[in-house]
Amino acid sequence: MISNRDSKFIKSLQLKKFRQLENQFVVEGAKNVLELIQSELKIISLFATANFIEKHEIELANCQASVNEVKEAELKKVGSFVNNNAVLAVVEMPTVQSLDASKSVLAFDRIKDPGNLGTVIRIADWYGFDQIVCSSESVDCFNPKVISATMGSFTRVKVHYASLSDILPKYNHTYGTTLQGDNIHEIHFEEPAIIVFGNESQGLDDALKPLIKQEVFIPGYGDAESLNVAISTAVFCDNFRRLLKR
Amino acid sequence: MISNRDSKFIKSLQLKKFRQLENQFVVEGAKNVLELIQSELKIISLFATANFIEKHEIELANCQASVNEVKEAELKKVGSFVNNNAVLAVVEMPTVQSLDASKSVLAFDRIKDPGNLGTVIRIADWYGFDQIVCSSESVDCFNPKVISATMGSFTRVKVHYASLSDILPKYNHTYGTTLQGDNIHEIHFEEPAIIVFGNESQGLDDALKPLIKQEVFIPGYGDAESLNVAISTAVFCDNFRRLLKR
Repeated sequence: MISNRDSKFIKSLQLKKFRQLENQFVVEGAKNVLELIQSELKIISLFATANFIEKHEIELANCQASVNEVKEAELKKVGSFVNNNAVLAVVEMPTVQSLDASKSVLAFDRIKDPGNLGTVIRIADWYGFDQIVCSSESVDCFNPKVISATMGSFTRVKVHYASLSDILPKYNHTYGTTLQGDNIHEIHFEEPAIIVFGNESQGLDDALKPLIKQEVFIPGYGDAESLNVAISTAVFCDNFRRLLKR
Repeated sequence: MISNRDSKFIKSLQLKKFRQLENQFVVEGAKNVLELIQSELKIISLFATANFIEKHEIELANCQASVNEVKEAELKKVGSFVNNNAVLAVVEMPTVQSLDASKSVLAFDRIKDPGNLGTVIRIADWYGFDQIVCSSESVDCFNPKVISATMGSFTRVKVHYASLSDILPKYNHTYGTTLQGDNIHEIHFEEPAIIVFGNESQGLDDALKPLIKQEVFIPGYGDAESLNVAISTAVFCDNFRRLLKR
């Protein structure tokens, strides 16, 4: 059973204010929690259904926190999602080291949608970026919808928050996606690079453009006006890895 | 004002059963409705706030249906979304011609998430595919969440529903994304092609694999286990257009 006290505490962590105050966040869903157990993140408490505990006995043996058996209806009550209520963990926020400018990084200018941020974290992980940086006005990476969309990649990709105009000058190779840039299929990328993606509806902030040496364009062949930021990120990363000068 | 009768009717169209019965569907949000007005689709009725009508006077002059001025709160009541309640149109479903096998097509095996289907329709439009085909068990393309995620591309991309095992033999060039395929960066694609993407959690149906001549793999460089189907679609299309033998 989840006590009233725990229940209230878990629900409070849906808000950024309380996550920051407590330095903790919530991870929900089988895929995310199973990746969490294998990671170095510190689990404070874990709640799971009898069914989940039976099915994942071996993986749960590696869990450093005690496992509390609870009913699915209880998890649904404290969780953020209608489905996928088999397991939930309360986790200590990792200490974020400063950005490592010797490695390439994906940068997001005012990314607002939690699903988008979660998806780009998963894409960063697929394409071998272990750090991303978001401008300070961006959505919080410990938002439950962000964690959910990462499909476990939140355990491997560090998210930094900073002013992009402070970060960009630290890199020699600076790229940004715009509608006026050079064709991405013909670029000789170099590392370590910072690659900046603009806001979902407004694109790249004009104030950042002078700090970006190469603007890059993803060629379209039809009539759609734009691509979603997560889609642009994936297409960019695929070309970046393919075209990287070695 | 939206009459009780209209209100009830519009709400009923949130369900596939009633959309099919009435042969009508609902389009919400500024971007989608503005693209709709410019398209050949037949608008039955249109409801908009005074603010929207004033802002888009020129575009609305091209609307073949009469424009009903309504309050935002009324639109919110009958619509499917919490935000973006400035305009809503009831539209006649287009007659879908049979698939044109002289042109390339993207095919989706049991695509279930409406956001994913909407996003792949937008991607198809960007990459110049004006038709896609979904296996019969897939989510309905007139679902409000699908329409919303297309960002207007539903007006240009035709969605067919069929058994993929019936459709695949119509094409000489058949590609599918799997984890065991050849590296997508090194393929000489040929047209007209059919490109099959597997279900969100189960991948490609084993029964379809014998019908696919070339399995293709999107190389990863990190530790994420998979990519979301919309992300795979975008990366595939970008490489397909780039590598197409002409």
